[in-house]
Amino acid sequence: MPESPIRKLVPFAEDAKKRGAKVLHLNIGQPDIKTPQVALDAVKNNTLEVLEYSRTEGSETYREKLAAYYEKNDIMVSSADIIVTTGGSEALNFAMGSIADADDEVIIPEPFYANYNGFATSAGVKVVPITSRMEDNFALPPISEFEKLITPKTKAILICNPGNPTGYLYSNEEIEALREIVLKHDLFLVADEVYREFTYDETEHYSILQEKDLENHAIIIDSVSKRYSMCGARIGCLVSKNKEVIQTALKFAQARLSPPTYAQIASEAALETNQDYFDAVKTEYVSRRNLLIKELEKIDGVRVAKPQGAFYCIAELPIEDAEDFAQWLLEDFRVDGETVMVAPAAGFYATSGLGQNQIRIAYVLERDSLKRAVNILKEALKSYIG
Amino acid sequence: MPESPIRKLVPFAEDAKKRGAKVLHLNIGQPDIKTPQVALDAVKNNTLEVLEYSRTEGSETYREKLAAYYEKNDIMVSSADIIVTTGGSEALNFAMGSIADADDEVIIPEPFYANYNGFATSAGVKVVPITSRMEDNFALPPISEFEKLITPKTKAILICNPGNPTGYLYSNEEIEALREIVLKHDLFLVADEVYREFTYDETEHYSILQEKDLENHAIIIDSVSKRYSMCGARIGCLVSKNKEVIQTALKFAQARLSPPTYAQIASEAALETNQDYFDAVKTEYVSRRNLLIKELEKIDGVRVAKPQGAFYCIAELPIEDAEDFAQWLLEDFRVDGETVMVAPAAGFYATSGLGQNQIRIAYVLERDSLKRAVNILKEALKSYIG
Repeated sequence: MPESPIRKLVPFAEDAKKRGAKVLHLNIGQPDIKTPQVALDAVKNNTLEVLEYSRTEGSETYREKLAAYYEKNDIMVSSADIIVTTGGSEALNFAMGSIADADDEVIIPEPFYANYNGFATSAGVKVVPITSRMEDNFALPPISEFEKLITPKTKAILICNPGNPTGYLYSNEEIEALREIVLKHDLFLVADEVYREFTYDETEHYSILQEKDLENHAIIIDSVSKRYSMCGARIGCLVSKNKEVIQTALKFAQARLSPPTYAQIASEAALETNQDYFDAVKTEYVSRRNLLIKELEKIDGVRVAKPQGAFYCIAELPIEDAEDFAQWLLEDFRVDGETVMVAPAAGFYATSGLGQNQIRIAYVLERDSLKRAVNILKEALKSYIG
Repeated sequence: MPESPIRKLVPFAEDAKKRGAKVLHLNIGQPDIKTPQVALDAVKNNTLEVLEYSRTEGSETYREKLAAYYEKNDIMVSSADIIVTTGGSEALNFAMGSIADADDEVIIPEPFYANYNGFATSAGVKVVPITSRMEDNFALPPISEFEKLITPKTKAILICNPGNPTGYLYSNEEIEALREIVLKHDLFLVADEVYREFTYDETEHYSILQEKDLENHAIIIDSVSKRYSMCGARIGCLVSKNKEVIQTALKFAQARLSPPTYAQIASEAALETNQDYFDAVKTEYVSRRNLLIKELEKIDGVRVAKPQGAFYCIAELPIEDAEDFAQWLLEDFRVDGETVMVAPAAGFYATSGLGQNQIRIAYVLERDSLKRAVNILKEALKSYIG
């Protein structure tokens, strides 16, 4: 199993805290946003006396309400097309296991969520990266580049939309282009759409299941973790109109019996979250993103991609080794007793040598902290380079 | 992925219910016992505002309290030896992935918990069965039989103690014999000890981690599901003094981020459950078991093993095909509108042809229902054979 790029830094962060530093965490996608009260209350008010297994595929009422949620988002599925999973992580595991055998290949635009490596390793599947570039804002690489990578062992293309770690939101045209190539080569298109609700600047998320004729090829990975700031619930789902995929995934699901019951109660209730909540959250993220990018661009030699979704952005720093820089920040650099933890971006690339001067920043802190964090980065770069 | 022996019957059970029958479920290990109030209350009274990821290896306080629980059970481990998992299922998955590569072999006494097949398949590991027999009450097969099965690809012996589906409780001498052979061949000994607390007739559970010199070879799989009747929590753990195993399992754990937060709150509180609760539960299970076995033995041609632990027993029926019988019960047989669902035991054997006239009965119903269930079996057998 490969190690996550962030994990290596964890001991240094813990040590920094022991030595009295306050660490501003820009390194993980753990939002500070409050979980919707309706979800918290549902758990507090539950009347269970025996905490029983739920159905393997998730409770019927939750899956029906999920189907209604998707319908509102122009994704026409029924409860039979949904398997509730223990986080989006498990949905990815089930998807990999269901569509690929050992030594099969899955093409993934890089930089990508580092845990995809872990799920691929578990399934014995080979990740074939296709590089998206900062100068293109991490847009989809040309389809001709995909064509070059497709072999008889290629089983799927996996995208994350909007993207972690890039924040890039694929356009309808890009999804259509992916549709053409998966239909042409009879591949699966797996889309991690857990950040679906986080799209900014009047953009709208376009799901792979809104595409025509993709029913048998499309698999959506979803999760409540970010949508409702419920990362600790561990509830996600796998959605597909392909009956064979659902049947195979269900066998994996049966082996682990059921998804967690309390978390399903919270997740079902979360579907009743008021639109005001999402509006407020979106406004908050947009203002954080705007502040973050404005402040980062003021720093000499820093380049930032323009994310339109999720709550991440990739920044290129005027240094050679972002991992060394990130470790040094935790070990040696403080401004008024504070330092910053960032995720070195090289760990999000499968192609060795790429992203070494890049970091991923998660804008999951409120503006004051974010501003201080960027200031620390600015001062740190001066000191590190000098 | 292999299908569970019970799953095939589920549609027949659902159909029976649709047609108005009451189905007495002796087929699954979902106890009717109430979850300890202290665990339910902890969740109802939680004050979380942001449902955050927990630590990947489980919360520090929970792991420390778990270590204290093990110490009380003469299992000397620290929190660093424990990874909290999403159910015992995930602990098994992590164990398989951590100790074996694709094509490696794990020896498991059969009949065994059918989901072991699923976890082995996920990890690409080959299950090598060694048959334990009803006439020996499903005791450990002779060590000489194990010796015959060990190859250079053998990585571990996996036991379930007390056993699902057999209810057999291994003696200290049997555990010692296993210790000898794993030390001799440098194997892992993995023990699924989720039924640890369910031992009857003045017997005591003897853990593999109570054995001397097994520190580097022993891996315990544990779970709160049965112990506190919290199957829906989905909390278990992997326990090992072997640092390499813990480190590798932690990488699998990192890919899925964290175990569920609410369920950890419940599980941590459950550790405060009063001894009275366990005493009452034990008394209840013993009286159910005694009733079940007494009633089953009254039926012509039925043989029953004598379980001393867990809440399962294997019964041999005077028929040829228990799967057909179980399906027929659901489809065609009623006593006063009721029927019984049992688990055909062939699915618990890896050796094809074994267990075909056996069923597993979970005594998870209160005595009145249990008595009616056995009566239905008796009448059904008369009618089925006749």
